[in-house]
Amino acid sequence: MFQEYDVIVVGAGHAGCEAAAAAANMGSKVLLVTMNLQTIAQMSCNPAMGGIAKGQIVREIDALGGYSAIVSDESMIQFRMLNRSKGPAMWSPRSQNDRMLFSQKWRERLEQTPNLDFYQDMVKEIIVEGGKASGVVTGLGHHIKARAVVLTNGTFLNGVIHIGEKKFGGGRAAEKAATGLTEQLVSLGLESDRLKTGTPPRVDSRSLDYSKMEEQKGDEEITGFSYTNSKKPKEQRSCWITYTNSQVHELLKTGFDRSPMFTGRIEGVGPRYCPSIEDKINRFAERDRHQIFVEPEGWNTVEIYVNGFSTSLPEDVQYAALRKVPGFENVKFFRPGYAIEYDYFPPTQLNYSLETKQIANLFFAGQINGTTGYEEAACQGIMAGINAHLKTKNEKPLILKRSEAYIGVLIDDLISKGTQEPYRMFTSRAEFRTLLRQDNADLRLTEISYRLGLASQERMDKVLSKRNEVEEIKTVLKNIQLEPGEINGLLEQLGSSSIIEKQRVEKILLRPNLQLKDIAQHVPKVQEALNSFQLESVEQAEIQTKYQVYIDKEKDLVSRMRQMEDLAIPDSFNYHSIQALSAEAKEKLNRIKPQTLGQASRISGINPSDVQILMVYMGR
Amino acid sequence: MFQEYDVIVVGAGHAGCEAAAAAANMGSKVLLVTMNLQTIAQMSCNPAMGGIAKGQIVREIDALGGYSAIVSDESMIQFRMLNRSKGPAMWSPRSQNDRMLFSQKWRERLEQTPNLDFYQDMVKEIIVEGGKASGVVTGLGHHIKARAVVLTNGTFLNGVIHIGEKKFGGGRAAEKAATGLTEQLVSLGLESDRLKTGTPPRVDSRSLDYSKMEEQKGDEEITGFSYTNSKKPKEQRSCWITYTNSQVHELLKTGFDRSPMFTGRIEGVGPRYCPSIEDKINRFAERDRHQIFVEPEGWNTVEIYVNGFSTSLPEDVQYAALRKVPGFENVKFFRPGYAIEYDYFPPTQLNYSLETKQIANLFFAGQINGTTGYEEAACQGIMAGINAHLKTKNEKPLILKRSEAYIGVLIDDLISKGTQEPYRMFTSRAEFRTLLRQDNADLRLTEISYRLGLASQERMDKVLSKRNEVEEIKTVLKNIQLEPGEINGLLEQLGSSSIIEKQRVEKILLRPNLQLKDIAQHVPKVQEALNSFQLESVEQAEIQTKYQVYIDKEKDLVSRMRQMEDLAIPDSFNYHSIQALSAEAKEKLNRIKPQTLGQASRISGINPSDVQILMVYMGR
Repeated sequence: MFQEYDVIVVGAGHAGCEAAAAAANMGSKVLLVTMNLQTIAQMSCNPAMGGIAKGQIVREIDALGGYSAIVSDESMIQFRMLNRSKGPAMWSPRSQNDRMLFSQKWRERLEQTPNLDFYQDMVKEIIVEGGKASGVVTGLGHHIKARAVVLTNGTFLNGVIHIGEKKFGGGRAAEKAATGLTEQLVSLGLESDRLKTGTPPRVDSRSLDYSKMEEQKGDEEITGFSYTNSKKPKEQRSCWITYTNSQVHELLKTGFDRSPMFTGRIEGVGPRYCPSIEDKINRFAERDRHQIFVEPEGWNTVEIYVNGFSTSLPEDVQYAALRKVPGFENVKFFRPGYAIEYDYFPPTQLNYSLETKQIANLFFAGQINGTTGYEEAACQGIMAGINAHLKTKNEKPLILKRSEAYIGVLIDDLISKGTQEPYRMFTSRAEFRTLLRQDNADLRLTEISYRLGLASQERMDKVLSKRNEVEEIKTVLKNIQLEPGEINGLLEQLGSSSIIEKQRVEKILLRPNLQLKDIAQHVPKVQEALNSFQLESVEQAEIQTKYQVYIDKEKDLVSRMRQMEDLAIPDSFNYHSIQALSAEAKEKLNRIKPQTLGQASRISGINPSDVQILMVYMGR
Repeated sequence: MFQEYDVIVVGAGHAGCEAAAAAANMGSKVLLVTMNLQTIAQMSCNPAMGGIAKGQIVREIDALGGYSAIVSDESMIQFRMLNRSKGPAMWSPRSQNDRMLFSQKWRERLEQTPNLDFYQDMVKEIIVEGGKASGVVTGLGHHIKARAVVLTNGTFLNGVIHIGEKKFGGGRAAEKAATGLTEQLVSLGLESDRLKTGTPPRVDSRSLDYSKMEEQKGDEEITGFSYTNSKKPKEQRSCWITYTNSQVHELLKTGFDRSPMFTGRIEGVGPRYCPSIEDKINRFAERDRHQIFVEPEGWNTVEIYVNGFSTSLPEDVQYAALRKVPGFENVKFFRPGYAIEYDYFPPTQLNYSLETKQIANLFFAGQINGTTGYEEAACQGIMAGINAHLKTKNEKPLILKRSEAYIGVLIDDLISKGTQEPYRMFTSRAEFRTLLRQDNADLRLTEISYRLGLASQERMDKVLSKRNEVEEIKTVLKNIQLEPGEINGLLEQLGSSSIIEKQRVEKILLRPNLQLKDIAQHVPKVQEALNSFQLESVEQAEIQTKYQVYIDKEKDLVSRMRQMEDLAIPDSFNYHSIQALSAEAKEKLNRIKPQTLGQASRISGINPSDVQILMVYMGR
C-alpha cells in the first residue's frame, strides 16, 4: 500500500522535520514516519530556540533553506539578541516560543511541502539488502521501500524515564518508547550505548509570586532568526529570574539516597553543560545559589517551565525544595521533572555525510548521534536530509567545513572525536568563530544550498543583493573622509582621542565603542551616503570593516589548515603498517578511519608527531 | 505535596473537562488529573460536535453553564442546522471543528477557571475509607485526598487496540492505556465489562479527487451552539460526500477472515448506530453502497477524517478497499482505522446523581458508563461535576427529569435500563421531544443552574429578558388581526386557502409552510410590531405559537407521568416479599433498586401489571 520512496525519515522531531523538508524540497519523494502525528516538532525540553552558538546554528539552517528559523519566528513570544555588549562573533539570537504554536507551524510547513507524505507507525526494523538500507518495517507490519533512510529517533529508542525510585518505559513523559530498532542495528554490527537527559518540573503560573523575581523582557526590536521576511509578533511575554539558596540545596540533598543518578540506577551519562540541579549542587558544592529561569510555555497558557531545575529526584523532594525558591513558596506542579535514558549510536560510526559506515544509505541525525539540543538536532537533520537525497542521486555529499559553519564544526567533532556525553555546541568549539557569525550565515551558506537546489532563488537573490550592497558600503566608508571638526565632538563625547587631520570613516570605525550609526547621526554627509542601503547591509559592512583584522587572521589560518584538510586518506590506508605511529594512534586511526589528514589531526589522542608521520607517508 | 481537594476529576476528555469546570465554578477546589496534559479535550473520533439529538445536548450543557458549546463555536470550521425542513423539535445544530483549536480552547478555558488545578499522572487506585471515596493514588505513588472523585476514563481502562490481526495496549492510537483502576474497583464490588468502538483511517487531503464527490457547505448564517455571544468564524470549510460500492464491499470481505470483529478476538460490543464499515456490509448485505463523509481536521491541515469508514480490518484491506471509493483512487494514509476495546461499568450501578451505589462520593461520567459520543460524555461530565460539588456540601443532587432535558433522558435510560452496547442519544429516545428543543434549552435549564450557583448572572438575565420578550410577542401575535385583503395574497402564493373574515396572526400562523417572517414581510404592521424584539425571541414565540397544541399535549403527559415519577421507593423496599410480582420483576427491581415508581416502570422487563402491584403496595 506504499509507493517506493526516495527517502524515509523516521521521527518527526527537530531533526526529522528538517531532514524530511530538505529531501522533499530537493525533489525526493519522502515519507515521514512518526509514532504520533499529533506530536510533530514537540519542544520536549524548554520552550526556546537559539541562544549562544545555538542561535548561530538556527541562522545557518535558515541560510541553507531549512524551516527552524521561520517556525521559531512565527511562534516566538519573546526575542533577545544575547551578548550584544560583546563583539559580533558572540552575538546570539534566542527566542522564547509558544510550545503548541511551534509544533503547529512546523506541521503546517511540512503539510505544504510537495513530495512529502506522512505516516503514523513505529519503525521496528531497517530493511537491509546487500549492505544497503532499502526501507523500513513498521510495528503494524508494513514493509516500506526507499532508496535511503534517515533515523532521527531522539530519546525514544528503549527510553526509560526515572523519577526518584520510580522507573518506566517511555520516549517522553506520557509517550511510549520505541523498541526493536536498536537491537536490529546492533545485530547488524553497529555499536550502541546509553545516554541520559532530563527536564525540570512544569508548574502553574498562577501559583507563583513574580514580585520576588527579576523580570526579563524581550528586545525592543525583534531581529528574529530568519533572513526571510518571516512574521514576528507585535507584543512579547516576559521571562523571570530567581535563584536557589542553601535551604533549597539542603532539601534536595535529603533525596540523594533515592536519586536514580546517585544510586547507580541511571547508567547513561548526562549533558555536562545542562546538568540536573542535584548534579549542580553536588559538583559545585561551593556555590550557594543557582539561577532559575522561569519560562512561560506560550501566549495563552499558565504552564511554566522551570529552567535550571532539571531533576530526577523523588517528586516530594522536588516539590519541597522548589517551594524554598523565592517566588515559588506556593508552587503547584503540573508535571514533575524526570530523567530519561535512551540508546544512542556513537557517531564515530558515521561518515561526514551522516551516513553510517556499516550500512550504506542509512543516515542518522539528532540525539541518536549523542547530541543534545533542538538546534544541534535540527542542523544534523537538514544535513542528513540533503545527503540522503544526494546519495539517491549518486551525487557527492555536502560536507561543510569547520571554517564554513557551526554545523561543520558539530559534525566534524562528532565524527572525528565521538562523544561520551550529550554533545552541545559552544562558540568555544569553533576555532574560526569570528568567521562564523550569526549575521553572515546567509553570506556563508545560501549559495552552497542554492547550487544544490535547496535554497530558493528568492533567498539567493537576496544574498546577492546584500553582498553587492555590502561592497558598495565598504567603498563608501573607505572614500568618505572626515575633517577633525566634523567628528571630534563625537569622539570627545565617547572619551576617544581626537583626530588631528582628516581621516577615512573606515579607519575611524576601528575605534572600540564607536558605532557607525553614531557617526552617521553626528555627520550628515555620512548619513546621506548610507541612506539608500538596507540596514542589514550597513550593519554587515560595519562588522566587516571593524573586525577586518581578526577576520583576515582567521581566514589565513583557515587556508593553512585547508592544505591539511584537503589531504584525503584512502579508506584502505593501513595504519598498522606504519611502525612510527604510537599504538594509541594506530588503534584510533584504524577505528575512526579519518577521511582527511585534517580530521585525523583532531582525533583526541592523535598528537602532532603522529600527524607529521602520516603526512610523510601520504607524501609518497 | 498536594492540598486536600474538594473534588478530583480523573481524565480530561469531554466528560472530565466539563466535570472539572462545573465543580470549580461552583466553588469546589478541584484537581484535574490526566495522563497527558498535552492531550486535554482531544476529539478522539471525528472532528465535529452536535448533530441530531446531540446538538440539543450541547445547547443544554451551555444553558447549564458548561463550556462545550462555547469551545465548539470558537473552534468551528463549519456550521449547519440539520433538519431545518422538519419541525423545530428536530432541528439540530452541528459543527465541524478544528481538532487542535478545540483542544487548545478547552485548555485555555480550564486554565482561566479559578479553583482548578492540573496534574499529569495516571490514577491507579481510588482511596476508599469507610465505604466512601476520599482521594486517589497515582502511578507516581501520590496519595491525593479529596472529598469526592469523578472518574472519566474514556476508552483508557485496559484499552486494547486492534488492527486486523495486530493487537496492542493503548487508550487511543499512540497513547498508553490506563491500568490498575478497573481491578481495584472490581475488588471493591463493582462490576465491569468490555465495550468496543472504532475509528476510520485518516488520510491526506492532497491525495483525494474532490471533483468526484459532492460538496457540502456550511449554513450561510452561523447560529452556533452557545446562547452567549461566542465568537464564530467568518469563513467556513466544506465537507465532501462520496459512497462505497460493491467493489469496495467485495474487497473488504477479503479481509473478514483476518477481522478481529468476526474472528472473535474482539469481545466487547460495538456501537450499533455507528458501526464499522465491515459491520455495515455484513448486517445490511442488501445495500450496495454506504455514504462516506469526508471531514477536514481543521483550518490549516491536510489531514482528513473518513467518516463512515470506521474499520478494524487489516490495513492493507482498508487501503485496497478505500481506493475503490470515488475520489479516493490515489489515497494516501496518515493513520489506519482501528478498533479499541475498553472496560466500562454497567451504569445500573449508579444513582441518578451519577454517584456509584457501591462507593459513596465516587462519580462516573462518560464512556466509563457505557456511552458513546462527545456530547453524551460532556453532559454526564457536567452533571457529575455539579453533583460531586453538591455532595461535598451535603446538598441534594441535581437530577434532571426526562421532560426537562435530553440529559435527563440519557441518565435515566442509563440508570434504569443499563446498556449492553455503547449508548448513543437519539431524538426517538425522548418521549417529550417536542418540549426538548434546541431552541429552548436556555429557557428550560438556565434557571436551575443559576440557582445552584453555576450559570452566571449574565446568562440568567439574558434568559429572563428572552422569556419576557417571548410573552410580549405572543401577546402581539394574539392581538393583531389581519384582514383578508392584507394576507390572502401571501396565502395564495403559498397555496394555502384564503381567509374570509379577519383573523388573528396567532391563528394564521398555525398553517403549515407559513412562517412568521413571511407574514411580517408581507404585512407592514406585523413587521413594525415585531421590529423592537430580538430575532431569537421572535423565533421562540413563533415556535411556541405554532406548536402550542403539541406542546400542551406533551405537557399534559408529563404531569400525568410526574405523579408516578414522584412516588419514591425506599431503598429498603423488599421486592421479594411481594408474591404477586413476577420472578423477573423481583430480580430486576432488586438489582436496579429504582428510586421512584417512574424509574421502575421504565426498566426493561417490568410490565404495567408489575407497576400496578407496586403502586398498591406503596399506597399502604
